[in-house]
Amino acid sequence: MNKNKITAIDVEYFKVPLAEVLSDAKHGDHTHFELMLCRVTCADGMQGVGYTYTGGKGGRAICSLLHDEMRPLLMGKDASDIDGIWHKLQWEYHYVGRGGLLSFAISAVDIALWDIKCKRADLPLWKMAGGASNKTKCYAGGIDLNFSEAKLLANIQAYLDRGFNAVKIKVGKDDYLEDVHRVEAVRSLIGPERIFMVDANYSMSVKDSIRFAKAIEHCNITWFEEPTIPDDYLGYADIADAINIPLAMGENLHTIHEFEYAFAQSKLGFVQPDASNIGGITGFLQVAALAKQHNLPLCSHGMHELHVSLLASQAHAGYLEVHSFPIDHYTTHPIKLDKGLAVAPDMPGTGVIFDDALLAPHLVKHF
Amino acid sequence: MNKNKITAIDVEYFKVPLAEVLSDAKHGDHTHFELMLCRVTCADGMQGVGYTYTGGKGGRAICSLLHDEMRPLLMGKDASDIDGIWHKLQWEYHYVGRGGLLSFAISAVDIALWDIKCKRADLPLWKMAGGASNKTKCYAGGIDLNFSEAKLLANIQAYLDRGFNAVKIKVGKDDYLEDVHRVEAVRSLIGPERIFMVDANYSMSVKDSIRFAKAIEHCNITWFEEPTIPDDYLGYADIADAINIPLAMGENLHTIHEFEYAFAQSKLGFVQPDASNIGGITGFLQVAALAKQHNLPLCSHGMHELHVSLLASQAHAGYLEVHSFPIDHYTTHPIKLDKGLAVAPDMPGTGVIFDDALLAPHLVKHF
Ligand SMILES: [Mg+2]
Ligand SMILES: [Mg+2]
Repeated sequence: MNKNKITAIDVEYFKVPLAEVLSDAKHGDHTHFELMLCRVTCADGMQGVGYTYTGGKGGRAICSLLHDEMRPLLMGKDASDIDGIWHKLQWEYHYVGRGGLLSFAISAVDIALWDIKCKRADLPLWKMAGGASNKTKCYAGGIDLNFSEAKLLANIQAYLDRGFNAVKIKVGKDDYLEDVHRVEAVRSLIGPERIFMVDANYSMSVKDSIRFAKAIEHCNITWFEEPTIPDDYLGYADIADAINIPLAMGENLHTIHEFEYAFAQSKLGFVQPDASNIGGITGFLQVAALAKQHNLPLCSHGMHELHVSLLASQAHAGYLEVHSFPIDHYTTHPIKLDKGLAVAPDMPGTGVIFDDALLAPHLVKHF
Repeated sequence: MNKNKITAIDVEYFKVPLAEVLSDAKHGDHTHFELMLCRVTCADGMQGVGYTYTGGKGGRAICSLLHDEMRPLLMGKDASDIDGIWHKLQWEYHYVGRGGLLSFAISAVDIALWDIKCKRADLPLWKMAGGASNKTKCYAGGIDLNFSEAKLLANIQAYLDRGFNAVKIKVGKDDYLEDVHRVEAVRSLIGPERIFMVDANYSMSVKDSIRFAKAIEHCNITWFEEPTIPDDYLGYADIADAINIPLAMGENLHTIHEFEYAFAQSKLGFVQPDASNIGGITGFLQVAALAKQHNLPLCSHGMHELHVSLLASQAHAGYLEVHSFPIDHYTTHPIKLDKGLAVAPDMPGTGVIFDDALLAPHLVKHF
């Protein structure tokens, strides 16, 4: 018997309410996030837990891909053939792919398989994925566009109080001068030394991005994230040429090809893949290799409880986003800071162990 | 009361078996196709029927998008605000888009809204969408890679007997010389005058595409479709530069941006959008406008019962693919040829009226 033979795939769909409404410039109000768990069980009882998440939309379609399509396809397959399964899923569903929802579903499967791989090797993910370190630089990423200036500053102060030395705020107000004012206020609060980024969630035109970036250059901004739509790869280059702030993107690039276009065309300063939508750890590490080749720091978007291990593992890591969706609050090991650095969990596996009792009230459907 | 207010959205999921197994080089064997119907009802009882299809995978996830996500979002909206709804759906689901499964779902909604628009205007789609003509050039598109040479030729002969003056076959055999031989055999059967295309379903490398194309140049091939993966826009240009057969692609480009990259980079001779996966008639006409601007003939992929009207409506139409998935057999007006031209239906609406009795045995779920 092959102990790695996949004998069960369980899919669970959760809708987890946020403590308050969080808003950005392009996705509107977030009232909850969706969490899709994919538990893969092997013939010998070994189990890996994978997952993906969304800002509140599309989760049931991801569950359909996992349960109706991939589960029957993967039953009986060898869970240790991670690369083979990754490519099989990419090509099997290519016509209704590429990227988009398909990438989210593949991500959940892939993370489960990596969890198994790490557990079988008795290694934590940060060692299995590269092993450069078990710590990584990080920042607190606010979703705070709808916050009053007073609340924005209080929120930033709370980040500092928790030990963060780097913060990011949303921009993209109707009047860009209001954005400029908020950026100045935050810089004034955090002092001249701390790392500070801004994120427009692709709400600006190329021209407006340039105007805004020039107006905040004096605030020492580490990066300007998603100024305009991710599909306008050459527009990014136009912005980069015109301003003195590095650009960042990645959360909306959902295939390795989309990252290739961005590396080739967009003159980025930082890249921010998300293992939940780029095809899991396998996809994330493909982007990591491209980033190394292009000499760009590797950052991340969302699901910090997993990315902490992936960034720590890579010598060219930039900054981990500690995201405002508190997925880690529903795990046994919420993110920990040590002198401003995020610490990767040290147990075998991905280190993301969901607390079933905490999640249970938010379960919508067990497939 | 606004008569256009959307009061109901019904989603139906069908799995329709094919008469025989159809194979191509990259998607493997097709045993059935999936058909997802989206019926939109207005306050005054007016109903529009939209739909999309797949080669057998992902249909339930599309239904989830239609039923779980878009139905609640669209209830109460004005069905005549087609452009507004199209953009709302694109942006609302951008994070779990773009393209891919989302485009299929948007397509089904959009086609239903166009059906309503045409019916209210008492116009057939070919007039509403442009009105250039009610007829269009067409070809029979075989999915015949697994056919023996004898069966391949018999199948082509059957196309000629039905009145087709243009045919396309699949290529991408393990041994490219076998492909060359099949191409020569088909050209010999159909004579020197008829139109003849080949389709590799992106199974070849750039180098292999060039070698194969050079080997069939003497067969007077109208286009070489999808030689390599759709994401390799610049690879297409390398192939185009090296051979004397025009290139065609489009069925795997699922956003207007992907078409923009192809127009800008791929040196195509023909473009082949599919209204079922490019965002419906609204998306198809956006590509049509780009094709006109780039002076390229507009062709189509799949669902000929709908595309016949869209191609007929455009002065720069190339060739309608009469596809091997017989969706039109389940409608009241299967495709008709007149001296080798396909004839657009003349009744108000899209002209695609499903025969519920014929479809009923294949209904899997009514949402
Ligand atoms: Mg962001
Ligand atoms: Mg094709």
